[in-house]
Amino acid sequence: MIDRIAILGTGLLGTSVGLALRAAGYAGSITGWNRGKTGADHALAMRAIDTIAFDPIEAARDAQVTLIAVPIYATLDLMEQFTAVLGPHQLVTDVGSTKGQITAAAARLFNTPDRAAFLPGHPMAGKERGGAALGDANLFRGAVWLFTDDTSWQRSQTGAALAKEWRELVVSVGSRAIDIDPERHDEMVAWVSHLPQFTATALSALLEEEVGDAPELKDVGGRALREMTRLGASPYSMWRDIALTNTDAIERVLLALEQRLQYVRENLRAPGLREEFEKANRFRTGS
Amino acid sequence: MIDRIAILGTGLLGTSVGLALRAAGYAGSITGWNRGKTGADHALAMRAIDTIAFDPIEAARDAQVTLIAVPIYATLDLMEQFTAVLGPHQLVTDVGSTKGQITAAAARLFNTPDRAAFLPGHPMAGKERGGAALGDANLFRGAVWLFTDDTSWQRSQTGAALAKEWRELVVSVGSRAIDIDPERHDEMVAWVSHLPQFTATALSALLEEEVGDAPELKDVGGRALREMTRLGASPYSMWRDIALTNTDAIERVLLALEQRLQYVRENLRAPGLREEFEKANRFRTGS
Repeated sequence: MIDRIAILGTGLLGTSVGLALRAAGYAGSITGWNRGKTGADHALAMRAIDTIAFDPIEAARDAQVTLIAVPIYATLDLMEQFTAVLGPHQLVTDVGSTKGQITAAAARLFNTPDRAAFLPGHPMAGKERGGAALGDANLFRGAVWLFTDDTSWQRSQTGAALAKEWRELVVSVGSRAIDIDPERHDEMVAWVSHLPQFTATALSALLEEEVGDAPELKDVGGRALREMTRLGASPYSMWRDIALTNTDAIERVLLALEQRLQYVRENLRAPGLREEFEKANRFRTGS
Repeated sequence: MIDRIAILGTGLLGTSVGLALRAAGYAGSITGWNRGKTGADHALAMRAIDTIAFDPIEAARDAQVTLIAVPIYATLDLMEQFTAVLGPHQLVTDVGSTKGQITAAAARLFNTPDRAAFLPGHPMAGKERGGAALGDANLFRGAVWLFTDDTSWQRSQTGAALAKEWRELVVSVGSRAIDIDPERHDEMVAWVSHLPQFTATALSALLEEEVGDAPELKDVGGRALREMTRLGASPYSMWRDIALTNTDAIERVLLALEQRLQYVRENLRAPGLREEFEKANRFRTGS
């Protein structure tokens, strides 16, 4: 039974995991660590964690399960540090938005019979802004929680049992656990997550230049404009590592949208526009 | 005092205007006409109108104020038919989404001392789907209602008074009335309304081809994907006339977004990406 969890990074996701576990009835300890003091204090005040750790390595050493909830490169750094100090009775898991590099590191640094187990995870939940203060016990309700686990890994018996139990906790907070190949994961999130984000960023940046000095025009655009630019509020700090660790796939999907917009532009007076609307309608009604 | 209104076209907008006028206390008559019988029956059952007219010309002839709430080319057709049968004691207004051609037709066909007055209008409100059944008395609450009136027009005294009173009705249903030059209007809505729509259509059509056969991927995308593709449900029939009557401006804004996406794509590993996110952030926080 898992009863000692460490959450490293008490931003929006880490804090929400702590809150969701408590709401689902998890009764063990939750130690939290955060690079900035404010985030840790917030998470503690919200009871997402019950103690603040001052060193991520010590927090992980004392835990059965360590959840890494920091950006991707920081996750890879912690994985390098943890491999030597954790043992086969421990599990590490993460919430990183791209899974290729993290899953490769998990194979290289963990998941042998004498090392800690690493379960690469990615909850498809978030908000356009981060931070502990937005932490939400219901963030994962109805969401998909992806895992890019490799069945060829020869984990310790304890490591395998902890991984199984972590999946059950994920389900207990309202998520649907789905297994997927890491390359397929990164290709897929490029389409359904990264493309919408970078499109909203490009559209918002363009509109900032074109109509940013006339705030009344935002009212004119109404709900449609607000929705199409809401993700424009996402900070660079949340997306930098994604752009750097999934560059090829994001380049492909952006180029595909550029070509699609060009097709629409060249068919404004042609039958192609009708077909494009009908195809878009199918995407919405097929869901 | 306006007490005989005809609403020609009881789709989403026409029906909502009828409902909103009633909710705001308008006590006169509202006659409705619709090309399809179902829409008129719906509007009548919802009490958005109190009688159904079987001919738009007769309905307009009997009204003090005629609101045309049909697509742009159908609006232009009705304007041609109305000019000879209406007189200086009457006002015609509309809800067309582009204003260049309609405002030019208003100058050519109306707004002399011996003809009916025409007040070109455009409420910035709607839903991604149309139809009387979605009619909503609160649709215009908090919305901007644009007018592209021309101060050089020499209207009859009654026509001018009716136009003033119609503006007051628009305010009574919760809208903010704003005057704008028709060319400026069409340029502006290209940025804040048409660009978001065509972007959502292109994105949705692209995703339909790429992931349309894997509906579980839509769940993976979550709220962000849903929001960025919601407008993909908009039907071609609502947008065809817009594409045809504002082609040049829409071509310009689509080309601008294509170039912007290309810039993002070429800067995924470069400092330009940070600047783009910061510019997008400003668009959202400046509002």
